[in-house]
Amino acid sequence: MNNEKVLRGACIIGQSGGPTAVINASAYGAIRAGLDSDVITKVYGAANGIKGVLNDKLYIMDEEDPAELKLMLNTPSSELGSCRYKIADPDVDDTDYQRILEIFKKYDVRYFFYNGGNDSMDTCNKISKYMQRVGYDCRVMGIPKTIDNDLFGTDHCPGFASAAKYIATSCMEVYKDATVYDNSQITVVEIMGRHAGWLTAAAGLATYFGAGPDLIYLPELPFDMDKFYADVEKVYATKNKVLIAVSEGIHYADGTFVSEAETSATDGFGHAQLGGLAVKLAEALKKRMGAKVRGIELSLLQRCGAHLASKVDVEEAEMAGRVAVESAVAGETDKMVAFKRVMVDGQYTCEPMLLNLSSVANFEKKVPLEWINAEGNGVTKEFIDYALPLIQGAHERPTECSLPRYAKLKKVIAK
Amino acid sequence: MNNEKVLRGACIIGQSGGPTAVINASAYGAIRAGLDSDVITKVYGAANGIKGVLNDKLYIMDEEDPAELKLMLNTPSSELGSCRYKIADPDVDDTDYQRILEIFKKYDVRYFFYNGGNDSMDTCNKISKYMQRVGYDCRVMGIPKTIDNDLFGTDHCPGFASAAKYIATSCMEVYKDATVYDNSQITVVEIMGRHAGWLTAAAGLATYFGAGPDLIYLPELPFDMDKFYADVEKVYATKNKVLIAVSEGIHYADGTFVSEAETSATDGFGHAQLGGLAVKLAEALKKRMGAKVRGIELSLLQRCGAHLASKVDVEEAEMAGRVAVESAVAGETDKMVAFKRVMVDGQYTCEPMLLNLSSVANFEKKVPLEWINAEGNGVTKEFIDYALPLIQGAHERPTECSLPRYAKLKKVIAK
Repeated sequence: MNNEKVLRGACIIGQSGGPTAVINASAYGAIRAGLDSDVITKVYGAANGIKGVLNDKLYIMDEEDPAELKLMLNTPSSELGSCRYKIADPDVDDTDYQRILEIFKKYDVRYFFYNGGNDSMDTCNKISKYMQRVGYDCRVMGIPKTIDNDLFGTDHCPGFASAAKYIATSCMEVYKDATVYDNSQITVVEIMGRHAGWLTAAAGLATYFGAGPDLIYLPELPFDMDKFYADVEKVYATKNKVLIAVSEGIHYADGTFVSEAETSATDGFGHAQLGGLAVKLAEALKKRMGAKVRGIELSLLQRCGAHLASKVDVEEAEMAGRVAVESAVAGETDKMVAFKRVMVDGQYTCEPMLLNLSSVANFEKKVPLEWINAEGNGVTKEFIDYALPLIQGAHERPTECSLPRYAKLKKVIAK
Repeated sequence: MNNEKVLRGACIIGQSGGPTAVINASAYGAIRAGLDSDVITKVYGAANGIKGVLNDKLYIMDEEDPAELKLMLNTPSSELGSCRYKIADPDVDDTDYQRILEIFKKYDVRYFFYNGGNDSMDTCNKISKYMQRVGYDCRVMGIPKTIDNDLFGTDHCPGFASAAKYIATSCMEVYKDATVYDNSQITVVEIMGRHAGWLTAAAGLATYFGAGPDLIYLPELPFDMDKFYADVEKVYATKNKVLIAVSEGIHYADGTFVSEAETSATDGFGHAQLGGLAVKLAEALKKRMGAKVRGIELSLLQRCGAHLASKVDVEEAEMAGRVAVESAVAGETDKMVAFKRVMVDGQYTCEPMLLNLSSVANFEKKVPLEWINAEGNGVTKEFIDYALPLIQGAHERPTECSLPRYAKLKKVIAK
């Protein structure tokens, strides 16, 4: 629905779900556009996402120093705080919605921007539908974010590219390190992405440039331990060294996550162990092959590595936030900002577009199977061509004594 | 001993021990100085350190493209290959030494440069003494390297600063990520350094800039699990979130490494588990406090993170290699290049100096106890003042499609 009526009032911007290196760039884009708008009367940041609305804890962004605010472009994680709060179905329980309406009325909130992944788009959608049902005039827009890159309908998601760049760079460095001795070495690197393998596929960028994993396993295909052993042994026989990238979400054909698998004759694990999948697989290979092994989990580092953020990602993330606000002011509601890839003279460009929230929420976009090689242990050139333009450039990164200088916000709470 | 006689002949440069982000900068400094020297007739790189000499596998560095060679300044790990070969005591078994002498004679090697840590300086020292004993004229110099920063007699070691910068930056990013939700969270980060806590102390740089660990435990002090629990509970009670940095080498008063501790009533661990120390400590805290926990091991990433190398470190590492060659050509032998910190008008500068190999080998320099706070869970301003100048600046970092562009050497093998 596009409503051309000028709607004056305050806006709230909230951040939700797991942090990324550039989610604050999106928040900045939205906050800055809100502050610059003639019809948005006040810009509030919700403390810890929708929980900040429910708890009446809103930061007045108008009170912030513009220069500090701009440092959000290079500050990782969610500066306003995040949450993993799952909002109820309003038909079952509308307590939360009544409370949100109360807060919206209290602060004359007419614009709500929510920055997150699948669940957040669902939250957006439900709030918007509720407000329409009770006749409260309010425009609701989703701003995409997820390192997992699994949002439906958009070419890619802000946050993915910077994590991909971190992963590719780290894999290159680990490759150099793990091949330094003349004795045998098997190294397993575990990468985030429980259901979609986009991030693990990014390790293939390192391979493409000659210093990356020999074998890459995505959760899009069922994992077979015997095939895995055969793959590793084949590389090992020729090179004496094997670098392997696995998604945390690899699972057997029956759906059991390999990370959660218990003792079995075939998988070579001992009983349930602490430690992640990488360590488990490395130990299984050691047991079978007697090789020197090491398991490495990229853990949180891969999603908060702002020092390696891609310029393209930072700029697109900021654009997503800005476009959400500008579109809402222009009359849009119930939309998520998405990205369309447009090749101009062979050069990558990215254009924003708007998708209906209802079409986005709760779908997961996976790596196309044709971008996985025939052996099921690597990615094709199609994936490289897809990912490479996204990781380009390094955003200006303010430092203090050569360490990152993050935004220091006052976070004045609205009364 | 300083011998002013001009000694013409070839040189060998070898790399040994664990990789660092800048060991190749030292190798480059030595190789470049060797190639530029009038008296050094040929520059060989030993494949995998002293093993390359023993196996007669030497790369002819004169054959390399100078531009590619220069990329070693930004290539992590040991480009010539490394080894962990422990050379025998020549009084017990001189087989290796006879072979080294044979190779030195075969290629008319009159200069030997070895780039490594404590063990490598010991190797240097033994080779030099042997050559003197058998009357073979050869100058031997050690080039320091170790992220552990534990070499005796030098203000600091090449490699430490870049790892320290990686650790500080990563801790800042993890701090931002791990404090994003409003619920409780305890995060344990495990950092390298089995006997000396320099690297773990570097996490204190993040704390100094307001986004780092609340608690830091070095191996210089015995670890007490009850005190640890009390420390964590105290921070947890006020902040609800705790970020903890631990050295991989923390140990109980009886010397047992915490990472290797078995079941005990006090330490809260289950029986011996896979996975590192961070995961173990995190699980123990979860069991005791019911908090959400996460263990993160910085693993190899911290020692090969060339993309975050400090400019000071790269330049000093290169200088160490160059000074070794220039000093040897000038007549020095049996020395290791070391660094002296000279403050000029309050500004840090670093001057090379030479130490006797025999005084360096096999000593370990630890973090002074007075640089650890009274509670034994953090570092003092003295450590910050020591470390901060070392991590300054970012070296120019050549890239290809926004990923690191490493040196591609031809590695032509000498016949």
